[in-house]
Amino acid sequence: MAEGILAGLSVVEGSAFVAVPLTGMTLAQLGADVIRFDPIGGGLDARRWPLDAQGNSLFWQGLNKGKRSLAVDLRSPEGREIVTRLIARPGPDAGIFLTNLPDAGWLSYDALRTKRDDVIMVALTGNRNGSSAIDYTVHPATGFPAITGPAGTGPVNSVLPAWDVAAGLHAAVGLLAAERRRSRTGQGALVRLALSDVAFAITAALGRLAQGELGLDDGGKAGNDLYGAFGRDFATRDGERLMVVALTPKQWATLKAMTGLAAAIAAVAARTGIDLDDEDGRFAARDEIAGVLAPWFAERTLAEIEAIFSGTGVSYGAYQTFRTLATRDPRVVREGLFANVEHAGGSTYRTPGSPLAISHADALPPLAAPAIGQHTDEILASLGLPDHEIGRLHDRGVVAGP
Amino acid sequence: MAEGILAGLSVVEGSAFVAVPLTGMTLAQLGADVIRFDPIGGGLDARRWPLDAQGNSLFWQGLNKGKRSLAVDLRSPEGREIVTRLIARPGPDAGIFLTNLPDAGWLSYDALRTKRDDVIMVALTGNRNGSSAIDYTVHPATGFPAITGPAGTGPVNSVLPAWDVAAGLHAAVGLLAAERRRSRTGQGALVRLALSDVAFAITAALGRLAQGELGLDDGGKAGNDLYGAFGRDFATRDGERLMVVALTPKQWATLKAMTGLAAAIAAVAARTGIDLDDEDGRFAARDEIAGVLAPWFAERTLAEIEAIFSGTGVSYGAYQTFRTLATRDPRVVREGLFANVEHAGGSTYRTPGSPLAISHADALPPLAAPAIGQHTDEILASLGLPDHEIGRLHDRGVVAGP
Repeated sequence: MAEGILAGLSVVEGSAFVAVPLTGMTLAQLGADVIRFDPIGGGLDARRWPLDAQGNSLFWQGLNKGKRSLAVDLRSPEGREIVTRLIARPGPDAGIFLTNLPDAGWLSYDALRTKRDDVIMVALTGNRNGSSAIDYTVHPATGFPAITGPAGTGPVNSVLPAWDVAAGLHAAVGLLAAERRRSRTGQGALVRLALSDVAFAITAALGRLAQGELGLDDGGKAGNDLYGAFGRDFATRDGERLMVVALTPKQWATLKAMTGLAAAIAAVAARTGIDLDDEDGRFAARDEIAGVLAPWFAERTLAEIEAIFSGTGVSYGAYQTFRTLATRDPRVVREGLFANVEHAGGSTYRTPGSPLAISHADALPPLAAPAIGQHTDEILASLGLPDHEIGRLHDRGVVAGP
Repeated sequence: MAEGILAGLSVVEGSAFVAVPLTGMTLAQLGADVIRFDPIGGGLDARRWPLDAQGNSLFWQGLNKGKRSLAVDLRSPEGREIVTRLIARPGPDAGIFLTNLPDAGWLSYDALRTKRDDVIMVALTGNRNGSSAIDYTVHPATGFPAITGPAGTGPVNSVLPAWDVAAGLHAAVGLLAAERRRSRTGQGALVRLALSDVAFAITAALGRLAQGELGLDDGGKAGNDLYGAFGRDFATRDGERLMVVALTPKQWATLKAMTGLAAAIAAVAARTGIDLDDEDGRFAARDEIAGVLAPWFAERTLAEIEAIFSGTGVSYGAYQTFRTLATRDPRVVREGLFANVEHAGGSTYRTPGSPLAISHADALPPLAAPAIGQHTDEILASLGLPDHEIGRLHDRGVVAGP
């Protein structure tokens, strides 16, 4: 059986929604044994959209691939005892708890430390002070919606919960950093992380926070323009659209060469007096440049354009829908990241493994998410519970299978 | 002097733009020694927008915080020899190379392995086959722009390069996973990662790829609505806007209670026959719910609304600009993540440290980015080069200071 690079690492996850489930999934796809516990019947995210035609959450299945599932009544003392024992299991690669659950006393770091002194707990909150915040309420605060979308629109939200993704991956970094220390020094850790801190730190990393603080022009509504160089979307003759970018000198040179419009663009430079070999100049003259390029795209089909650009160094990408991405993009349909996988509930669809390809380790095949409670019995048995005790826990409603 | 949890880890970074610089910065802010090498005068991203009033790149400074900088002529054999020696330095925590540079032969994994057999190389490419792709051309392919923005708009791009962020953090996970194995087994690694794989894998993780493949309705243009439950933005009496979300039962209950509109919303349920205690029902009736809520928000100022909602469990967030985020949001202005830091070139602005707070390790203070070439001499000296040899390399233009 294939083993990922993190084989042996053992993580218990108590989570919901995007960020922390993504953390656990990222580790599971690299071979860690990630046990997610959920209330019997599923938690707050068990029915999150999108759903398949049978009502199964494609969202839940997508974010919990490769994990094992324990369904347990978290309100019962026995249920809590099971989860605590699971987190505090012995072993140098166990004793790691990953969560965005409210700090519930019995699941607090201090409580868990009494069971295993070197426990590692990675805890995501909304805000640094422990108050609630979610991607959809943090994103408005960052300032990005104010400059997203066409001129004349109000704030435009992101459909992609990018901060959840960033927070979840940050949490994985924090977990591995803490585990690295523990393996060297024996010291456990509480790793804390706030969604809004991640969002604001990345907004700062992109220079935007300083731009705001220093009172510099943020450029206003960006439309589909790349900021600070040339990039814009164009319509093709067959009604498709594609994004074209000339950020680097090479991208700019090949775009001019492949469209055959170098002379027309030189005329723009002459007329405007703007140096278009400079990225700032390309941004300043972006409307004039687009005016020269737009008819060239409008006269050609997307396939014709791709035939001209492909392999040349022109930076471009066609707009797709989720459907065309899933059914036509060769990077999804043909190559090695995706495979058809049957999921709990019966739907079969293209499912990715880890995007990390690490030499001298097996790449795990794309894995399905468990049904909630699918591994309850084997997990209880691994804690040393005899069959009759496991049966008694089922009978009393403390745990459940799928 | 404070030491982060990754103190001792030593990484050499050859990179540009967002993703890989973010990887290195994430590690540097946790205490790793990250040496970024650049061409003399800076590489492709040295002048990337936003710029401060003096023309310094706030973008470059934002993404290279806490690193050391070596400026070196990468076309000269001597410059290449210096970089190779730096990457292959001995020591159990060194020998790690992080890059998105084109596979240039002398910087390939196979070439580096001849210098240090257990080298770890983390290499980000655009596409899995090595071809070029950047955030702005990958995002259109994901399908998200097709459903972003108000009804009636064409595809709406993201201003935030979310896939670069996700790829950069993924690379940090891959690096730490490979380093974990090397510390246990002595085995080095080539860790490969493609930007488009990350984007498509996350699109799949959110259930959207399966939704497209299975031919399910993606909901069309999302506007500012939360998908699959209730969430929308509202205008206040003083011309502000805020996002309000009722995804969980608690969020929904507190929203109704705090606005005092439970009866009016019950009337919506009665009139439409839709169960609004179900998240699907709230999405189906979102326009009717918003119709009840909108006047309540329009009659109150943002400050009045915040006074009512704060601490109650209502999930909400006001829209800000980069400027209001930087100058008024207490999470940036008051709390511990940010501090005023002077950067190369003279601008001083609020700068974050790592959003990861790890117990039993120092949290490094927010750090500035180096000037390009700032650490050239000390890095060369650490390779054992005597002063006269360092002087000769400067004279011949092989290396440079800031």
